Amino acid sequence: MAEINFWIGIIATMAFAVTGVLAITDRGVDLFGVLVLGLITAIGGGTIRDIILEAPIFWSENQVYVWLALGASVLTFFAESFFTQPQIYRWMLYMDGFGAALFAIQGADKAWNMHFGLPLAPVILGVVTAIGGGLLRDVLAGRKTLIMSHELYAIPVSFGCIAYVLILNFWPQYTLEGSVICMLGIFGLRAAAIHWDLRVPKMFISRTR
Amino acid sequence: MAEINFWIGIIATMAFAVTGVLAITDRGVDLFGVLVLGLITAIGGGTIRDIILEAPIFWSENQVYVWLALGASVLTFFAESFFTQPQIYRWMLYMDGFGAALFAIQGADKAWNMHFGLPLAPVILGVVTAIGGGLLRDVLAGRKTLIMSHELYAIPVSFGCIAYVLILNFWPQYTLEGSVICMLGIFGLRAAAIHWDLRVPKMFISRTR
Amino acid sequence: MAEINFWIGIIATMAFAVTGVLAITDRGVDLFGVLVLGLITAIGGGTIRDIILEAPIFWSENQVYVWLALGASVLTFFAESFFTQPQIYRWMLYMDGFGAALFAIQGADKAWNMHFGLPLAPVILGVVTAIGGGLLRDVLAGRKTLIMSHELYAIPVSFGCIAYVLILNFWPQYTLEGSVICMLGIFGLRAAAIHWDLRVPKMFISRTR
Repeated sequence: MAEINFWIGIIATMAFAVTGVLAITDRGVDLFGVLVLGLITAIGGGTIRDIILEAPIFWSENQVYVWLALGASVLTFFAESFFTQPQIYRWMLYMDGFGAALFAIQGADKAWNMHFGLPLAPVILGVVTAIGGGLLRDVLAGRKTLIMSHELYAIPVSFGCIAYVLILNFWPQYTLEGSVICMLGIFGLRAAAIHWDLRVPKMFISRTR
Repeated sequence: MAEINFWIGIIATMAFAVTGVLAITDRGVDLFGVLVLGLITAIGGGTIRDIILEAPIFWSENQVYVWLALGASVLTFFAESFFTQPQIYRWMLYMDGFGAALFAIQGADKAWNMHFGLPLAPVILGVVTAIGGGLLRDVLAGRKTLIMSHELYAIPVSFGCIAYVLILNFWPQYTLEGSVICMLGIFGLRAAAIHWDLRVPKMFISRTR
Repeated sequence: MAEINFWIGIIATMAFAVTGVLAITDRGVDLFGVLVLGLITAIGGGTIRDIILEAPIFWSENQVYVWLALGASVLTFFAESFFTQPQIYRWMLYMDGFGAALFAIQGADKAWNMHFGLPLAPVILGVVTAIGGGLLRDVLAGRKTLIMSHELYAIPVSFGCIAYVLILNFWPQYTLEGSVICMLGIFGLRAAAIHWDLRVPKMFISRTR
């Protein structure tokens, strides 16, 4: 399980760094900014989670995530024209959705195992792990954040984390199966949103005054 | 005293969630964004305080604040037209001022009791508890923050925290009375600012260039 | 060494507060905002570093940094027309570059001595110490952050931290000399950037779309 978790983290980290960089390269950012913002997108959410949990920051124990995020960021900067091809970019969006699903369930799981503020806090920290890095990036890059965008991104993540916490609570014997199902559920919803370009329905959006 | 503190926190949390949501619903935010930003407004300040204090995050020990903030946020979203009636909205502003007064003194008190960076840090952490959540909300929602707004909000909070720290230092036997007086002082100044629409005097504002 | 570190911190803190305030006074900020943003510029980076390190926040142990930052901020507010004279302002920019060099090496050193995530994390935390406060200020003041500005600021800081970590790793017997050389190296590059108005070369900036 620890082995799987490690590889899951690897894939998600790289996906986040690539999409994180692609989200800002249209703004005329320099290579240093790309490194900083790619790194923050990839490891920012988990860092905020660990700070709130008062657990050792995950990348102080295993630097591989940091190296990968930095490497993926540089690569994306120099191969931007490759990654922004519509076909490839779409693929990256799916990867990013997969990364969000993985990070969310990992984050909820970590909080649950530390008995941190059950039952609500693991849901919050799962969401923080998945979207916190992107929020930090957007704030530092002066972009509109995900929270104001009406994208179906954080909502699938939230439902998945709620489902996972319910499984941990009521059917703890199915933790492993539950984690896989919740990840796939988040990814499925997110993939549907990408494929059909779904957004938050109007009735759940406040009227602009 | 612990009992009173608990109820004080309840009222302040709800007031912050309601005014926190009302501050952003004019920007076309979706229900998920409302939940996140309402929650952050209500518990963000105390969370930053506890992170700096390296104390257990307050909502990991008692989830009731989180539930209330989420509930108040949803309610505000669906009953927005009720809350934005001028009369009700004004009432909410007073409630919010009361919440800020309570959170400020509680925050300063917590830092003082942990002997954290006396005598200056309890003042800073009282202010952080009262305004930190609103700052986080504004940054994530892309709004101008309180710090740039010339509202008489953080200044009464600061004076109240300074007065409370002076009382804790020189007249520790009057801690309880002092905390009530400082809360009422903050609330009184804030209420006056709301009632007469007072703002920071021009001589204390830098000239725009 | 501890003695020198203390005085270094004093100078850097004051320089950061002054330049931090000058960066925002053209936006019509009030005295309270000046105090908050001056303080955040001066002690924000070290605070984020200590939170990530899970070390006691440095200003909880010695309040002198907070007093100085507040004092320098008030002074800058009232003597703004003095500090914005081209000659004096230029001098302040050099002071600020000196402060960044000091804070960066101090931050990297602290992380290294705590064996935090060697070898990469000390570099990251050195950079965070030097630029974190300015980033927080810009976000709260609604300014474009340093990361998006193409200034040659964070890049010299990063190179200095990398060089210092290499020295700590391969020539630990030269720690003291190395720290001085790396500080001077950062300051030299930053001073050159100020003097000749150097910016990040175009080939390292993504095209605006």
